[in-house]
Amino acid sequence: MKILVINCGSSSLKYQFIDMDNEKVLAKGLCERIGISGSKLTHEPVGGEKFIVEKDMPDHNIAISLVMEALTDKEHGVIRDISEISAVGHRVVHGGMKYSESTVVDKAVKEGIRECFDLGPLHNPANLMGIEAVEKAIPGVKNVVVFDTAFGMAMPQKACRYAIPNEYYEKYSIRRYGFHGTSHMFVSGEAIKFANLNPENAKVIVCHLGNGASVSASIGGKCVDTSMGLTPLEGLIMGTRSGDLDPAIIQFIANKENKTINELLDILNKKSGVLGMSGGISSDFRDIEKEAQKGNELAKTALEAFKYRVAKYIGAYAAAMNGVDAIAFTAGIGENDIEGRRDICSYLGYLGVEIDEKANDVRGKLTLISKPSSKVKVMLIPTNEELAIARDTKRLING
Amino acid sequence: MKILVINCGSSSLKYQFIDMDNEKVLAKGLCERIGISGSKLTHEPVGGEKFIVEKDMPDHNIAISLVMEALTDKEHGVIRDISEISAVGHRVVHGGMKYSESTVVDKAVKEGIRECFDLGPLHNPANLMGIEAVEKAIPGVKNVVVFDTAFGMAMPQKACRYAIPNEYYEKYSIRRYGFHGTSHMFVSGEAIKFANLNPENAKVIVCHLGNGASVSASIGGKCVDTSMGLTPLEGLIMGTRSGDLDPAIIQFIANKENKTINELLDILNKKSGVLGMSGGISSDFRDIEKEAQKGNELAKTALEAFKYRVAKYIGAYAAAMNGVDAIAFTAGIGENDIEGRRDICSYLGYLGVEIDEKANDVRGKLTLISKPSSKVKVMLIPTNEELAIARDTKRLING
Repeated sequence: MKILVINCGSSSLKYQFIDMDNEKVLAKGLCERIGISGSKLTHEPVGGEKFIVEKDMPDHNIAISLVMEALTDKEHGVIRDISEISAVGHRVVHGGMKYSESTVVDKAVKEGIRECFDLGPLHNPANLMGIEAVEKAIPGVKNVVVFDTAFGMAMPQKACRYAIPNEYYEKYSIRRYGFHGTSHMFVSGEAIKFANLNPENAKVIVCHLGNGASVSASIGGKCVDTSMGLTPLEGLIMGTRSGDLDPAIIQFIANKENKTINELLDILNKKSGVLGMSGGISSDFRDIEKEAQKGNELAKTALEAFKYRVAKYIGAYAAAMNGVDAIAFTAGIGENDIEGRRDICSYLGYLGVEIDEKANDVRGKLTLISKPSSKVKVMLIPTNEELAIARDTKRLING
Repeated sequence: MKILVINCGSSSLKYQFIDMDNEKVLAKGLCERIGISGSKLTHEPVGGEKFIVEKDMPDHNIAISLVMEALTDKEHGVIRDISEISAVGHRVVHGGMKYSESTVVDKAVKEGIRECFDLGPLHNPANLMGIEAVEKAIPGVKNVVVFDTAFGMAMPQKACRYAIPNEYYEKYSIRRYGFHGTSHMFVSGEAIKFANLNPENAKVIVCHLGNGASVSASIGGKCVDTSMGLTPLEGLIMGTRSGDLDPAIIQFIANKENKTINELLDILNKKSGVLGMSGGISSDFRDIEKEAQKGNELAKTALEAFKYRVAKYIGAYAAAMNGVDAIAFTAGIGENDIEGRRDICSYLGYLGVEIDEKANDVRGKLTLISKPSSKVKVMLIPTNEELAIARDTKRLING
């Protein structure tokens, strides 16, 4: 069984085509600048050569049809006919309070995704466009949606409710949802397997540290808390997002600078994080690290504050679960920043965390990085959201 | 040496008059509804009878002169002449980045307090009015100001900086300040003494839980982190304040309800917290507890969320300090809510916290509430901000 996994942004479309008999990726690719001039498709059959198509993509329908052409291309393709695509799994960012699990797409589900446009204004419309484009390009194929918020739906009320007037929860479903759910679910599951923990009650903290970053706590694979909230703005310090701050800061700056709420939120989403803290150096943590090494004080503070906040979330979640069995690092920074992992764990000696410096000297590879004597197993676990989506898709179309 | 301690609000003035030779309170009182019709002074000489004066108080000058009359009243007074007041200590809420310690008032200090009106718009103007009223009422007396933000000034950059554009820090001094500083300082100091910890490096977490609530972490009496931020809105769930939330919620509600930033912040400060979460039951935790006991689900969730968040902050601060030696509960809820303390500590078994249920069955009294075998000493320590202010005042006028 071969499954196509699609992640649609407003002007982009990422895909992976996976053979589910062995969970191997056959091909992957990216359509960029959809609806903008200069759009192109980069297609990469695994083991083959990269193949670039520079063609106008006025909308997602055209993008999908180019993906179909690439997958079935005589020279660069990996299948002969699109009928070999058994099903398509779609990443959908916001499932609101309606979806706590992946589901096969039908008319009602599409309506449900539309109802969540409000909650996921930047992503849900594009996600829906992707689904509709596939419906046109491969008529009759089963589409499955995997919600980024589904994992967080297991959170208890004490964790997901904000201390705001209850009417806003009732009227607008304002609660903590959490994002990167597919990654947190995948990595926490892999952590339990890899560290041979009890799948019923293992207490796992996953640090998904990328340009967007979040932490989750789960017991037996069920989310009990997570750092992103109603939107992906809350929680950790990110590349351009502020994460947690005194809400009154919004008022303070808006009044001082004569800015609107929307302008302020734009600043908090796009010009803050390590980019803002560092005085504009970069949103890329590698650039910040380079500048910090050169002695730039703002870059140093930004990096320290980032790691400090991750450590505090780990500490908070250890309290939330009354203990922790395993901590897993994943995503770009989590998988590649050796010093970052070490520094974060250096706060955690009181939990019995002992990092093996040699084992930690690794990038992007499933590795136990704690010493055998460590009371908490610490791991690097590469995330694989596409595989997680493909697995859910397979499960649901077989079911 | 007798010291008068004053805490001025915009329409109120609280005072205590303390004999510093034995740190005993001689009298205390409250002027209410200053500048509003129906103002009254309640004066209470310790060991004597309460004495109420119903008189118009159009401003703080009149209020102070009534306090002087009460203190020297033949029947209800505790001194013969105001010359027996050796000095006056004032609580000032915001010291900005200028004041990290208490200081004797002079012209420059008054200007400094005025410069912080922006940062403490609700309190600093009233605090300054109090100082000026005392200068008129007791010419020549030394005034000392004790800043609520001073304790937090010891925080390292990684803890006090927000991940917002650096220019806002430079231009407007936007950082974490923390409040209840005098209480956190006093209680952490008392905790070290009471538990016989090393004053150089004891790691102490203070939970100041009242209608306003905050947590602090300190090492050797120096603040390393605290939950309130630029303003007292951040952090824990409070009586009417939301504490932490996804900043994007402000935008979401404002756009949905067509409200301004200022209106939203007013809601977050005055209509949120357990009052908002409970659907409007009350901002008083005792009322919320009563309703929760009767089975009201919103009240239950509000209480659970409050305790859960305190536990998460304790966990986060244990990580911030890589361990914790003592946890102290203080203020209205911290000193009186037996069940609350027990429930919060029930998250902390992984730290080696063991509560002694019998010892914990206590209100408002300095008590060790953990078992002898507990790895972390847990205490109830009544706060005494007035005494802390009086001690600083004595120290500074002697110096």
